[in-house]
Amino acid sequence: MEILQWNKILIPYEQAVEELKVKFKAIRNELRATNEYSPIEFVTGRVKKVSSILEKAKKYGVSTEEIEEKIEDIAGIRIMCQFIDDIYKVRELIRQRDGKDLRIVYEKDYIQNKKESGYQSYHIIIRYPIQTAFGEKEILAEIQIRTLAMNFWATIEHSLNYKYKENIPEKIRERLKKSAEAAQRLDMEMWEIRDEIINAQKLFEAKSNT
Amino acid sequence: MEILQWNKILIPYEQAVEELKVKFKAIRNELRATNEYSPIEFVTGRVKKVSSILEKAKKYGVSTEEIEEKIEDIAGIRIMCQFIDDIYKVRELIRQRDGKDLRIVYEKDYIQNKKESGYQSYHIIIRYPIQTAFGEKEILAEIQIRTLAMNFWATIEHSLNYKYKENIPEKIRERLKKSAEAAQRLDMEMWEIRDEIINAQKLFEAKSNT
Amino acid sequence: MEILQWNKILIPYEQAVEELKVKFKAIRNELRATNEYSPIEFVTGRVKKVSSILEKAKKYGVSTEEIEEKIEDIAGIRIMCQFIDDIYKVRELIRQRDGKDLRIVYEKDYIQNKKESGYQSYHIIIRYPIQTAFGEKEILAEIQIRTLAMNFWATIEHSLNYKYKENIPEKIRERLKKSAEAAQRLDMEMWEIRDEIINAQKLFEAKSNT
Amino acid sequence: MEILQWNKILIPYEQAVEELKVKFKAIRNELRATNEYSPIEFVTGRVKKVSSILEKAKKYGVSTEEIEEKIEDIAGIRIMCQFIDDIYKVRELIRQRDGKDLRIVYEKDYIQNKKESGYQSYHIIIRYPIQTAFGEKEILAEIQIRTLAMNFWATIEHSLNYKYKENIPEKIRERLKKSAEAAQRLDMEMWEIRDEIINAQKLFEAKSNT
Repeated sequence: MEILQWNKILIPYEQAVEELKVKFKAIRNELRATNEYSPIEFVTGRVKKVSSILEKAKKYGVSTEEIEEKIEDIAGIRIMCQFIDDIYKVRELIRQRDGKDLRIVYEKDYIQNKKESGYQSYHIIIRYPIQTAFGEKEILAEIQIRTLAMNFWATIEHSLNYKYKENIPEKIRERLKKSAEAAQRLDMEMWEIRDEIINAQKLFEAKSNT
Repeated sequence: MEILQWNKILIPYEQAVEELKVKFKAIRNELRATNEYSPIEFVTGRVKKVSSILEKAKKYGVSTEEIEEKIEDIAGIRIMCQFIDDIYKVRELIRQRDGKDLRIVYEKDYIQNKKESGYQSYHIIIRYPIQTAFGEKEILAEIQIRTLAMNFWATIEHSLNYKYKENIPEKIRERLKKSAEAAQRLDMEMWEIRDEIINAQKLFEAKSNT
Repeated sequence: MEILQWNKILIPYEQAVEELKVKFKAIRNELRATNEYSPIEFVTGRVKKVSSILEKAKKYGVSTEEIEEKIEDIAGIRIMCQFIDDIYKVRELIRQRDGKDLRIVYEKDYIQNKKESGYQSYHIIIRYPIQTAFGEKEILAEIQIRTLAMNFWATIEHSLNYKYKENIPEKIRERLKKSAEAAQRLDMEMWEIRDEIINAQKLFEAKSNT
Repeated sequence: MEILQWNKILIPYEQAVEELKVKFKAIRNELRATNEYSPIEFVTGRVKKVSSILEKAKKYGVSTEEIEEKIEDIAGIRIMCQFIDDIYKVRELIRQRDGKDLRIVYEKDYIQNKKESGYQSYHIIIRYPIQTAFGEKEILAEIQIRTLAMNFWATIEHSLNYKYKENIPEKIRERLKKSAEAAQRLDMEMWEIRDEIINAQKLFEAKSNT
């Protein structure tokens, strides 16, 4: 397929990514504007590059015609959270929209079920309808929800996979696993502080009500 | 009502304006990416300031409870076009979405029916559903569609109205009308060039098909 | 020259355009934040596309090595004003910076000396120093200052020139000139209103001082 | 001092933050566009809120007249890095500009000299000249350079300090220190992987040169 045709195919995905970024950022702004805690720290999004789409299609034996139906992360949204439990709060916010402005296809919990490599993240695959200049269309999109530490680790693993073409040497893979553990420990420490704070607050509120 | 409460009321309008700006800009980008002419030149949006909302409510005898139902331009989108006929193409694009991601309430054609002051613009009042951090909500929004010349004139009239508190002196009002005519003449001249071009192209295509 | 090399050449121009946009927008924001009138209505900027640079180089017989020194509008900034006299106020603002964060090379006044085609605009060619990841560099940039009406006309002339490859048919060229006159009349009408307002204000102030 | 006066004082700081953000983001873009590694991962910036400026002035006994000369972080830029050694590369990039578009006042290395609380970051205080609508001005700005893990920890410490008004309870302070250690361990693990990669690459290059 030619570049121009690819551009035309990818345009609705660009639009979907822009819309979804605005929507998830709005949730954060809304909560902060009303002095409530936002489980969303920041949001990024991207459309997969043509070369990466073709590579993935080749790897999984997906024909050109099937690409839009089989490759689920052409449109990708990433939501970063401060604490592990925020991830599940964001999941709830998305589930509440199911059947409204989006439809959940399935979910993958790589936090309860950490990948062999050390990768942690919560994925939700959705169908998202958009109105384009050429009519209505429904596309697939992948939402990844993670803590900042998980994201930091995943970014580095991603560049190593890119560098080593998915064949990271054993020695470095070991180190990566160790650093995944360090990232996880950081998340656990943070989570425990958070717990402490909530307990301290409850104690304080209980006192002021007597 | 207090500032904080106003903030909470206006948040969904902010979100709607952001979403609608993304959506109309997407139409322009989609058409240009496929080498097609875009009737949309650029898009702006704003949420009305609290002070302006209260002023308008007072002027039209709208009670605080009725504000969200009676004041239709709290969320405002402005779409600028190069040529007069583009305005009606944009209107068609919006009408095609009616019942999909928005609902048209009514339309006002201040181009066929120019205001006494010289004001020209096409207004579409819509209902627009959004998913907020606190659940679903449907808000009213006003979409204004105009040429660049109409917009230029309207901007200046607006600042004069602001300066003179809606009591523009007769002499200046006369001048404003004259400049509205100059703006209109510019639009007509441009529209005629456009017509010429389209005719020239048709001639050319007709030739190359024989 | 290859694409990658071109990218490297154009990067400092991208940076210059970003910096200059921020700087001229800041002037507008500063004046408005202090309730003063801003002669700058809005600011856009762009880096010339490689294909357009090569075309221009060919047209004027500029060799690849001379491009950066001979083609003055690789980095382009456009400043739009509401009124004709604002253009000269913006020129003063730029002249005051001469020898500070930029150096003026020369100026072209296509307002006093309208082009045959009807084109009107004020051009200032500057040298602008930037700090890049690879060290210091000084680039050429062109600043175009115009009213909204001049800009509207120029945009349309530009697309016609593009369409007809600089050979706009006589009949359309005539129409274009007529519309340039309509644009100019609009600017004159607006300028006269502005004069009226200033007079009205002086009258008012004179009154309130007695 | 009144709000309006404060606005006027803070405007040049807003401009400086915008310019510096554009400049440091440009470095990242320039390196990435030429396939080189960027020590800058992302850049944020903010102008201190009036209430925070007044609080800090009160705390350190700074009079209103001295504020601009004594409070060094009214304009704040934060540069995030992937690896610890990137911090020192960014420092070099800034030192190379000393005397060009900025002047370094002094530096504070809270990485070699970690704060008692666990806080880690590299601070550079600069003087930065800007051209405003009202003439030239030189302001003070603080640049903070940190890894993503350091930034994550600092964000949480900051919100706890805010919540407890600088009096974080002993028990939570202990937990915070522990999590600072976890963050540091993550940075060390990452830094070691990075080292491994560089070694692996050297080995590879050495091989391909024989």
